[in-house]
Amino acid sequence: MADINSKLEIGVTTGAIRGSRKIHVGPLGVAMREIHLEPGSGEAPVRVYDTSGPYTDPDVTIDISAGLAPNRREWITARGDVQDYAAREVKPEDNGLKGPDRSAGVPAFPNVVRRPLRAKAGMNVSQMHYARRGIITPEMEYVAERENLGRAMLKEYVRDGQARDGESWGASIPDYVTPEFVREEVARGRAIIPSNINHPESEPMAIGRNFLVKINANIGNSAVASDVANEVDKMVWSIRWGADTVMDLSTGRNIHDTREWIIRNSPVPIGTVPIYQALEKVGGIAEDLNWEVFRDTLIEQAEQGVDYFTIHAGVRLPFVPLAAKRVTGIVSRGGSIMAKWCLAHHKESFLYERFDEITEIMKAYDVAYSLGDGLRPGSIADANDEAQFAELYTLGELTKRAWEQDVQVMIEGPGHVPMHKVKENMEKQLAACGEAPFYTLGPLVTDIAPGYDHITSGIGAAMIGWYGTAMLCYVTPKEHLGLPDRDDVKVGVVTYKLAAHAADLAKGHPAAKVRDDALSRARFEFRWRDQFNLSLDPDTAEQYHDQTLPAEGAKSAHFCSMCGPKFCSMKISQEVREFAAKQNQPVETFVAAEEAEAGMAEMSKVFRETGSELYMGSGGREHD
Amino acid sequence: MADINSKLEIGVTTGAIRGSRKIHVGPLGVAMREIHLEPGSGEAPVRVYDTSGPYTDPDVTIDISAGLAPNRREWITARGDVQDYAAREVKPEDNGLKGPDRSAGVPAFPNVVRRPLRAKAGMNVSQMHYARRGIITPEMEYVAERENLGRAMLKEYVRDGQARDGESWGASIPDYVTPEFVREEVARGRAIIPSNINHPESEPMAIGRNFLVKINANIGNSAVASDVANEVDKMVWSIRWGADTVMDLSTGRNIHDTREWIIRNSPVPIGTVPIYQALEKVGGIAEDLNWEVFRDTLIEQAEQGVDYFTIHAGVRLPFVPLAAKRVTGIVSRGGSIMAKWCLAHHKESFLYERFDEITEIMKAYDVAYSLGDGLRPGSIADANDEAQFAELYTLGELTKRAWEQDVQVMIEGPGHVPMHKVKENMEKQLAACGEAPFYTLGPLVTDIAPGYDHITSGIGAAMIGWYGTAMLCYVTPKEHLGLPDRDDVKVGVVTYKLAAHAADLAKGHPAAKVRDDALSRARFEFRWRDQFNLSLDPDTAEQYHDQTLPAEGAKSAHFCSMCGPKFCSMKISQEVREFAAKQNQPVETFVAAEEAEAGMAEMSKVFRETGSELYMGSGGREHD
Repeated sequence: MADINSKLEIGVTTGAIRGSRKIHVGPLGVAMREIHLEPGSGEAPVRVYDTSGPYTDPDVTIDISAGLAPNRREWITARGDVQDYAAREVKPEDNGLKGPDRSAGVPAFPNVVRRPLRAKAGMNVSQMHYARRGIITPEMEYVAERENLGRAMLKEYVRDGQARDGESWGASIPDYVTPEFVREEVARGRAIIPSNINHPESEPMAIGRNFLVKINANIGNSAVASDVANEVDKMVWSIRWGADTVMDLSTGRNIHDTREWIIRNSPVPIGTVPIYQALEKVGGIAEDLNWEVFRDTLIEQAEQGVDYFTIHAGVRLPFVPLAAKRVTGIVSRGGSIMAKWCLAHHKESFLYERFDEITEIMKAYDVAYSLGDGLRPGSIADANDEAQFAELYTLGELTKRAWEQDVQVMIEGPGHVPMHKVKENMEKQLAACGEAPFYTLGPLVTDIAPGYDHITSGIGAAMIGWYGTAMLCYVTPKEHLGLPDRDDVKVGVVTYKLAAHAADLAKGHPAAKVRDDALSRARFEFRWRDQFNLSLDPDTAEQYHDQTLPAEGAKSAHFCSMCGPKFCSMKISQEVREFAAKQNQPVETFVAAEEAEAGMAEMSKVFRETGSELYMGSGGREHD
Repeated sequence: MADINSKLEIGVTTGAIRGSRKIHVGPLGVAMREIHLEPGSGEAPVRVYDTSGPYTDPDVTIDISAGLAPNRREWITARGDVQDYAAREVKPEDNGLKGPDRSAGVPAFPNVVRRPLRAKAGMNVSQMHYARRGIITPEMEYVAERENLGRAMLKEYVRDGQARDGESWGASIPDYVTPEFVREEVARGRAIIPSNINHPESEPMAIGRNFLVKINANIGNSAVASDVANEVDKMVWSIRWGADTVMDLSTGRNIHDTREWIIRNSPVPIGTVPIYQALEKVGGIAEDLNWEVFRDTLIEQAEQGVDYFTIHAGVRLPFVPLAAKRVTGIVSRGGSIMAKWCLAHHKESFLYERFDEITEIMKAYDVAYSLGDGLRPGSIADANDEAQFAELYTLGELTKRAWEQDVQVMIEGPGHVPMHKVKENMEKQLAACGEAPFYTLGPLVTDIAPGYDHITSGIGAAMIGWYGTAMLCYVTPKEHLGLPDRDDVKVGVVTYKLAAHAADLAKGHPAAKVRDDALSRARFEFRWRDQFNLSLDPDTAEQYHDQTLPAEGAKSAHFCSMCGPKFCSMKISQEVREFAAKQNQPVETFVAAEEAEAGMAEMSKVFRETGSELYMGSGGREHD
């Protein structure tokens, strides 16, 4: 734990991702990453979605103590519907401290905002409210430009006669994303743009079934481990590898200050579970929770700039006993806290009863709801049971109530679900929640692989993403066992990026296949560096390659360690291509010629002339 | 490379898997692994499928230079249809050597069999031949007992009123596997029992859609790297973690001797791709391959005891040009070699033309076919294309021809396939190949994650396994980049075990869910050691746990590092349960009581009396 009197030392990873260049596109300067390929290859640069913010921009100087530039502030104030005011005073209990003595605390963020913004009386500053009034905000324009990466490249594909290829299960993904399309999706509640007016450092992004599938990374202290420097570093590290949003799940002490450091330095939306901090404020006794403490916590976090709140308002008193029959009962922390409160008082949840008052607060700062699935299954045995779906239908009811006040909503989902029950989750959610974005944790498709749950959950995540889930909450290898370290965070993020991309591919998203094809062409042509740079993790790809063939020359050599210099598969394909070209004939004639004994010798001769050397290796062969 | 004159030092990992005990069940002493749980838990031991052979049996002394005991030999000879004969003489070129000087070679296996077995003239020793004549072999009995693990436990489940739960897509998985069921499945070609009569060290296992989903691990040295000691170690290491079969894909020198060391020490079926060695024998020039060299190689390997051969007989001359249009052409080594041969001579593949002669050899030793997919797609762009399916239909035709001689067949499948095209592969294979077992490589559901292709392929593997694939060929993190080391092999095997298990669960296999439920109960009850021991990799699970909470006490503590001592989710569930019990009333009344103001105070009081302590952690909670 850092000494309060010493300047906090926070180191984060900066610099461009290997082989990539940061670019800014369009009038709004939308940040993207461009991967440049070998000049000789004749390949156009590949544009990919970039969540890493200024940290990968060599032209920006990073100062963690100052925070990022509040680029959105002008857009927000220009709308004329907000006012600043004196911030709620930070109390010792906000950081889990008993009194003014902060020696057990972490340094407060030096550049804290003293006068946060709030909607003027009677105003509603949510993106959904603007959208429903026909207003296209800069945030919506930014999202449109951002989601269009690859659409330009797609045009070439169409020229090549390649049509849309996929099964989107009823999604409506456009060939090209216009600002008006974004507005319509937000207006009808099918997408959200989490963008608290007090988090002007964020780069707008959309979560919705008709946009690219997004992923979330969880970080946060616990009373047992971790500290603020680690958490800021993990946040920057997770967005470097592709996290679209980050949830700060800190518990224990220093929750308030840790969150301030994270938000002021985050270019992606930040989510929290306010009940955690509320519980700390009442000394960890669930029964002592009450509306006043919870409301105070919502205001505190809304002023800091949290973009979405997980609210477990669906854990109603009547549902609690349904969990009694389960193998693993209630596995959601927030859900269990509320279940305990309901039982202790034998009263309906105050989150449910005060829901409209919570919504009033959300719309004054444009905080989006992430309606928590406090009764999600924690084991294969409990998947798709009565408790889970009873809560889901309640979340559907609450979604409509939030929408009545134009507040943005997404819905959290399981959990542990065997493959044959995954689709039912998606279908029921779409029906019950009016197509509000689904935000799922995995799901894990088996319980028996602790230590590998990024994979058991990555399988379920890819599938449910394909079926229509808008954002996938990552799971790291440490799930069920411990707190993720820096390496676990990277493995979790990359695993979920590949799952989300696999989902985009299967849905037939126009921008998805471009990158696969570029990488596969690089593989086929033995452009090793291009193959590394086009991958989700260029550093690991090159490192693995070098473990077998460290020599620099091996990266330009036309063979690799899998086959060695004596085998070939890519090369032969190139020869086949040349041969067919030389014959300058369609396949049918070629086949016909097979019967023509006369033609054989000649054809054989032609082939040998093309140089049928087999002593070349393969960059893409698989197992046999 | 070991010096030929020095005794070869080969170290392999032995000893029981943590928390498990080796048991032998039934008259045939079928090897299984039994996981014993905390005495206080009242939980029965959990039996799991065991592929590790004698290496995890403390009662067996392992001598790599002697090889394993030939337990099957008596069964084989007792059938009276085999005879021994003088083995084909091993030639220098079998090991890629130019002459008698073996200084560049590896030590020959000391305990080599001089007189291999072969079917008597006119006899057929394939398991399929016996099955079709109504004979139940000891191999079939062994398989029946082995596949029944968990079925006994299932009975308890049925007593608990738990019915079969799953979607098997038309598979016919029985509640209980009888030897007669195994015979029927083998007779109709829907399952195979790879069991070369010259590999009596193997423990019989079945590959078929109505049995547990199996996985294969690939090992083998290449001209670039690896040696015999590494390969034997990798074989033993891969079966320790669950590989059901192992393919020796060695190329370059010492192929013959390396294979001998592996087979003599392997309790699982060994597969090879004979064309690799045949190519070595002709100096690596594909055009110089011919039937005589290939036939000689088949005999050589059949005598050594290879249990299944990958034969790329579906790569026909007319199909080769179809690969010319592809983004990644031909990615199969065997496929590219044959494509090159066909083009060079402009002749039909000799593997296709001599297929019935190959089958004659197979049935004399009971070597099973693994019909290779030489034209499988090597990229998302090439998935499910004309070349791939043209070959698949040919494999279907060849399957029937092999069955005419009662020779066992499985079919190899892709490759790289986006999620929405995976199911079509399974459906076409079942239709084209008469339900012969499908054996797929992944498939990889995206091309953009080199370094993580065990995961991109594990997603496709779990899905296609669910749809009906009988065996999944593992992919390691080094795929496309380099040769897997020991750690890569373990990660690949565990990843595929979890994918195969997820498939069994989704199919509703009666034996699958038992283990998930046992582990989830252990998690719910904070039985940390049981949770570790029930997992696929107890060592990693415990290691990850200890990274955050190393103290021994933490393994018995009722909290964990994810929530810390201040949060609870499992504990609350237990309280909910007790409370409901105390009320001794069904949910409805409980809900009704909610309205009864009068009852509330009392209920609340009762709950507090149950001791509503929240200062306990969670062993199973997830993210919020």
